[in-house]
Amino acid sequence: MSVSIHQAAVPAILQILDSLSAIIDKAAAHCEARKIDPAVLISYRLAPDMYAFARQIQVTTDQAKGITARLAGVEMPSLPDVETSFDELKARIAKVADFVKSLPAAEFEGAEARTIPMKLGSREVEFTGADYLFGFGLPNFYFHAAAAYDILRHAGVAVGKRDFLGAIPIR
Amino acid sequence: MSVSIHQAAVPAILQILDSLSAIIDKAAAHCEARKIDPAVLISYRLAPDMYAFARQIQVTTDQAKGITARLAGVEMPSLPDVETSFDELKARIAKVADFVKSLPAAEFEGAEARTIPMKLGSREVEFTGADYLFGFGLPNFYFHAAAAYDILRHAGVAVGKRDFLGAIPIR
Repeated sequence: MSVSIHQAAVPAILQILDSLSAIIDKAAAHCEARKIDPAVLISYRLAPDMYAFARQIQVTTDQAKGITARLAGVEMPSLPDVETSFDELKARIAKVADFVKSLPAAEFEGAEARTIPMKLGSREVEFTGADYLFGFGLPNFYFHAAAAYDILRHAGVAVGKRDFLGAIPIR
Repeated sequence: MSVSIHQAAVPAILQILDSLSAIIDKAAAHCEARKIDPAVLISYRLAPDMYAFARQIQVTTDQAKGITARLAGVEMPSLPDVETSFDELKARIAKVADFVKSLPAAEFEGAEARTIPMKLGSREVEFTGADYLFGFGLPNFYFHAAAAYDILRHAGVAVGKRDFLGAIPIR
């Protein structure tokens, strides 16, 4: 009686990717209604030495593809960080969601015990698949997803926790 | 080949609780060094209608006990929201971490298929244990933990992602 790594990782990641896409729609509508140049929100940040909104979305999507590709044991697609509009950020999210959905659940079998090597700064480290997912991948993914949300929230976009949680998997 | 609900939930939650406690130490040191009244950071927020720092910590810890108690099928301790200092917030975190640690792993067996009823606003909903953990509990937990971090980051406390991730479970 337990859960598969696919079940633990994939639906949750897709849920948040979808919610970020919908939050970007709200940010775009906010800009339109208030006559704000979207570039302002796209480059908005909570501190001068913290990633801006666009970068938070880029890193969140990088985590989504990195987590799932590493656990499935497949190459991850390269995504240059070139997005400068809400539409481009949404396209990036959609591309990553498509990649995540394309990975067969069977590829994740046994991933909990697979060795996941990572380079952290100059350090080479190793995780088991389960420790990587729960102790590094998901916390990282949510860290950047929540930062993207918090940036918009701070900037006055009318979003709430339900927007962040998205389509929660009630029965 | 899979992971238990205990393995998926408990170490990750304890990791972030520990990191929040250490981040509060940095916030306290920041206040001391800059002669800032700690009450300022404790009531700091990213938007006027968003929870302040103390409330983010209270809700994060509520999620930690709620997730683990529901999945283990035990009563959760009541924690009044009364903290007004960094030390009191750290004590709350420690109390919740002790509760989480006190739950025997065996109590989580079969939790992935357990029905978890929840009241969301005025709606009564149900999750399976696995869907509750991955699609509601953890996203909620990280949402508030990251908000607490983002509030301090925005307020100028010298914290970085490594502080948030805490003691990552490398081999």
